[in-house]
Amino acid sequence: MTTIIDGKAAAAALRLRVADETAALKQAGITPGLAVVLVGEDPASQVYVRSKARMTVEVGMASFEHKLPVDTSEAELLALVAMLNADDAVDGILVQLPLPAQIDSDKVLRAIDPAKDVDGFHPINVGLVATGSGGIAPCTPYGAMLLIQSVQPRLDGLHAVIVGRSNIVGKPMAQLLLQQNCTVTIAHSRTRDLPDVVRGADIVVAAVGRPEMIRGDWIKPGAIVIDVGINRIATDDGKSRLVGDVAYAEAAAQAEAITPVPGGVGPMTIACLLRNTVEAARQRRA
Amino acid sequence: MTTIIDGKAAAAALRLRVADETAALKQAGITPGLAVVLVGEDPASQVYVRSKARMTVEVGMASFEHKLPVDTSEAELLALVAMLNADDAVDGILVQLPLPAQIDSDKVLRAIDPAKDVDGFHPINVGLVATGSGGIAPCTPYGAMLLIQSVQPRLDGLHAVIVGRSNIVGKPMAQLLLQQNCTVTIAHSRTRDLPDVVRGADIVVAAVGRPEMIRGDWIKPGAIVIDVGINRIATDDGKSRLVGDVAYAEAAAQAEAITPVPGGVGPMTIACLLRNTVEAARQRRA
Repeated sequence: MTTIIDGKAAAAALRLRVADETAALKQAGITPGLAVVLVGEDPASQVYVRSKARMTVEVGMASFEHKLPVDTSEAELLALVAMLNADDAVDGILVQLPLPAQIDSDKVLRAIDPAKDVDGFHPINVGLVATGSGGIAPCTPYGAMLLIQSVQPRLDGLHAVIVGRSNIVGKPMAQLLLQQNCTVTIAHSRTRDLPDVVRGADIVVAAVGRPEMIRGDWIKPGAIVIDVGINRIATDDGKSRLVGDVAYAEAAAQAEAITPVPGGVGPMTIACLLRNTVEAARQRRA
Repeated sequence: MTTIIDGKAAAAALRLRVADETAALKQAGITPGLAVVLVGEDPASQVYVRSKARMTVEVGMASFEHKLPVDTSEAELLALVAMLNADDAVDGILVQLPLPAQIDSDKVLRAIDPAKDVDGFHPINVGLVATGSGGIAPCTPYGAMLLIQSVQPRLDGLHAVIVGRSNIVGKPMAQLLLQQNCTVTIAHSRTRDLPDVVRGADIVVAAVGRPEMIRGDWIKPGAIVIDVGINRIATDDGKSRLVGDVAYAEAAAQAEAITPVPGGVGPMTIACLLRNTVEAARQRRA
């Protein structure tokens, strides 16, 4: 029987743990706080920011929302980041991407105090995670890692194939899997004979953003399949639905365990953001 | 015919380029300077430091050697690093490893101004290289990359297998190969069926520090083999010789191109250090 990895339940369990840790910090007089900055009115970003704020409050933390107009200058945004860096009530800072064209995202992300960089995008956190020296890991690969370990705690010597080499998912995922002693292959759009590369995987992590690209016959029987993709596709009835980067039904027939889309990796991202924030609060203030 | 990649010649050519760039900077009134710090009297480290200083002067740069007693405290070393950070004549700072036990190496490496971190070990440089956002790449993998490109300039879609996952070689090597659009596998001591993994490689980079571990029948015919290992082994006549991590004669019979040991990757390391220093001088002062 294939295990369908329930990301919603795992995320709810993680949020409960974060709520407990938050309660403990509050007893010590520390209320962890997460500041989320949204520039402009991108509808998807508005939804994310609203969910983040709601869940932040639900676990007992303070939520600070900063909504700036779409024509905000880079200097104005950098000034806000500097203010949040200096604000002792703020333990985590998240600047919602994408930013409008007049703002250099890299510059903004590098301006965030690395100790408050709960997205884990600051180069110093990337470097610390890469060298296994601590640091804050990005939320999505960290969440994917927790799901893998929920079905297979010991990953020693397993061959993990990551499809996609983004800075946000693929590359940090490789570092986390290496830390767990996996043999790690990073494949991508230039990879020759991708099906054959994926067939060698005990663990497949799909993070390419191409709907149902990874087919069932690419999956080694018994593999763990983690689908990070979230793609909206049109359906025959003129509506649309969400699918992952993996052809789910086909792959589920081969895999030992698989994440669905939606309800797999997705819900873990915000839960891991909250976990990073409570951890940042503990490191910085305890 | 197998190409034997001549690292000595490639390093000499790179040093000539660095000498030209140094001459150009001097015309603009800038003399690039490299400071090397040696704590204690480890014989191998003394040899390295001497070679570095000699070659630094040969390419026309200023060389600053700081030799400290073996009982130097961490605070004293950090004070020296701070002084070198502030010294405008110093473009590159290299603290020779290993350091004595009373000193936390990570703390010292993180104290070096990232703009002067010509070894590329500061987490911020690790992060910048990992995300493809610039930064200073560590000398040995950078040198290995130049040797690969000397026989195969276009690496798109080739499968590179790196054996060894150190922060100094294996992991940054993976990032550099990914940037060149290779499919990259990182294998290591926990990898199952390592011979089989290596057999899939168009490019093999061996960096494990185990003499002649990688055998000829692990090498796909036509592969490029880069041997980063330098191991001293005893010979039957009671003397010793240097060998790499690859069984050279066997592998050379299979490979399209291979680096010898010595005379392969080794000579590139100092040449790349000089290249990183002249580049740091240009970035910081031009």
